[in-house]
Amino acid sequence: MRFVARVLVRPKDEVRDPQGEAVLAALRSLGHDVAEVRTGKEIVVTFSAADEDAARATAERMGDQLLANPVIEDYEVQVESAKETRVPSR
Amino acid sequence: MRFVARVLVRPKDEVRDPQGEAVLAALRSLGHDVAEVRTGKEIVVTFSAADEDAARATAERMGDQLLANPVIEDYEVQVESAKETRVPSR
Repeated sequence: MRFVARVLVRPKDEVRDPQGEAVLAALRSLGHDVAEVRTGKEIVVTFSAADEDAARATAERMGDQLLANPVIEDYEVQVESAKETRVPSR
Repeated sequence: MRFVARVLVRPKDEVRDPQGEAVLAALRSLGHDVAEVRTGKEIVVTFSAADEDAARATAERMGDQLLANPVIEDYEVQVESAKETRVPSR
């Protein structure tokens, strides 16, 4: 069965986020009254697994192994079964 | 009133995603049977607005002006009122 895992990787709260600081400064220079900006990455992985529990376990292993740096980042995994039946183009 | 807008910026489907291709290759080299990887950015903006409609309009203006490149990217906005009463540290 095919699953899609959305892995959201964010800098830990106590870690500086220079990209977010740059966006904050740019939004303020455009006249927006912004208090804070934090940025993160969304990684959407399509893969096969036996069932949803196995898919979640696999996605968390991907997060631990590669997608997040546990020293400075946290991640969150959302898993759902792939709706499309089409074969992905890559 | 304070709102938090999550802006998810993703490359359009027809645009190549070199970062996603690199993650795909790395996951495969770790032994994962992955069909496709797409990456995006999550930008979480905390700001003040009169009400939720105004907050959404402001967040979409930020997306159009700065956060997304409309030639190659799409974005999606989710707005909710900020739950914390603490003053953000930045």
